[in-house]
Amino acid sequence: MRTVYVNGDYLPEDQAKVSIFDRGFLFADGVYEVTSVLDGKLIDFAGHAKRLQRSMDELDMTAAIDMDELLEIHRELVRVNDITDGLIYLQVTRGAADRDFLYPAEDTPPTVVLFTQAKPGLADSPMAETGMKVVTIPDRRWGRRDIKTVQLLYPSMGKMEAKAQGADDAWMVEEGAVTEGTSNNAYIVKDGVIVTRHLGEEILHGITRKAVLAFAREAQMKVDERAFTVEEALAADEAFVTSASSFVMPVVSIDGQQIGTGTPGKTVARLREIYLEEMRKAAV
Amino acid sequence: MRTVYVNGDYLPEDQAKVSIFDRGFLFADGVYEVTSVLDGKLIDFAGHAKRLQRSMDELDMTAAIDMDELLEIHRELVRVNDITDGLIYLQVTRGAADRDFLYPAEDTPPTVVLFTQAKPGLADSPMAETGMKVVTIPDRRWGRRDIKTVQLLYPSMGKMEAKAQGADDAWMVEEGAVTEGTSNNAYIVKDGVIVTRHLGEEILHGITRKAVLAFAREAQMKVDERAFTVEEALAADEAFVTSASSFVMPVVSIDGQQIGTGTPGKTVARLREIYLEEMRKAAV
Repeated sequence: MRTVYVNGDYLPEDQAKVSIFDRGFLFADGVYEVTSVLDGKLIDFAGHAKRLQRSMDELDMTAAIDMDELLEIHRELVRVNDITDGLIYLQVTRGAADRDFLYPAEDTPPTVVLFTQAKPGLADSPMAETGMKVVTIPDRRWGRRDIKTVQLLYPSMGKMEAKAQGADDAWMVEEGAVTEGTSNNAYIVKDGVIVTRHLGEEILHGITRKAVLAFAREAQMKVDERAFTVEEALAADEAFVTSASSFVMPVVSIDGQQIGTGTPGKTVARLREIYLEEMRKAAV
Repeated sequence: MRTVYVNGDYLPEDQAKVSIFDRGFLFADGVYEVTSVLDGKLIDFAGHAKRLQRSMDELDMTAAIDMDELLEIHRELVRVNDITDGLIYLQVTRGAADRDFLYPAEDTPPTVVLFTQAKPGLADSPMAETGMKVVTIPDRRWGRRDIKTVQLLYPSMGKMEAKAQGADDAWMVEEGAVTEGTSNNAYIVKDGVIVTRHLGEEILHGITRKAVLAFAREAQMKVDERAFTVEEALAADEAFVTSASSFVMPVVSIDGQQIGTGTPGKTVARLREIYLEEMRKAAV
């Protein structure tokens, strides 16, 4: 049984609970991060800590979160759960208060929850060799996707829709352009140029996205941050996604249509290699 | 201390908890209803029970909820908490399971939570006499507002924005037309015609809306269910909102501009009177 963290306590997972009055439960008034663990070390913890603070700031969540303490909690969970490869999920909500659309008093203690998920061989996923299949669905999420809130019902529905169609994930489309995957950023490669949607309120500002684009530029690859259409994606040489838990993952078909050769391309393979190598080095 | 209901148990509110793995907490994968209590009786329970089932159906929540049992739980909470006037909040989620965007197994028990909020004099709110002030904000919610999910962060932000501007609530606007209030349906009255947005995925299918429109038609009032603009609202003779907890409530200013005489109008007063009278008669 896992040991998880809830508001200062390390508890067996079956005793880990939050109040029914928690605003995360009643209003989806919470934000989260997922950090990967490889060889027992945290991948890009600093990036996740920074984005967590940004999400909280955007929602006027004024509670002070000590990022050094948060790092220690991550490490302790890795230790007590003996995680070699896996994920650490972190959620912060505005806390518990009697139900009211208005935010509770600013001194209401936030709810802080962390738990691990063991994923043996996380960096050696067979999907990196075979590639994933995606389908497209309309993007019907709220307008502030740059804030990493727990309002994940639509992405969850999208993943179910993909599964129903025999695919691995869904890419969301708005006004003809791809925004992102249900839990990852989306990319295409055409004539040697890596194209991925520009940052804005329409997509999550991926921590992995940021690192991968930096590595791509360092490796003299061309990067174009702009919206791209489904038609462009279908005509691309390669396609892929990035996320904290999948790193860099090739996409080999969209809506049942093969992309490029229908097998993972060279650009994505190279980016995945660089990303994993560099991030393992920098892991804490 | 309140007694609340959680998954079969009646508990003191400070012991009422759900798992940190509850999908309501992690994915906002839950739906809810709020039923008013007047003189110890439930207002339109059947309407709320029907909509709850619809919300669950739309989300493929297959768990069987026994509506007769739910009615008994509502009544028991009214009794043990000695509620004369107030609200009963009900939330059903897809249950607890290790975190995965894919829905858990269909036999995962749903989470069912209910709690009361005492609101003495609920039907005699001073606001019914003075009217409320609203401000307009863009509608940035997800695309399926007809499903009553707990993804309430944006409405919550909207209520805070209204408060910051010295108003009581916000009306949300999309493509120039008012969709609805943060937790109520929106109406205007012009030249004797009651105008409120038509049903669709853009708004909640209000239980109170349905009853009020039926009463209006029975009383030979003209009703036009269509989108209306902010400009139309500003030029209206009257404006109001309806919800299970506010019943029928006059709106006397929008974005700081007075509507009609700047005082509650005759149509809204009449509708409120009819609604409360009829619903008290039918209360269970």
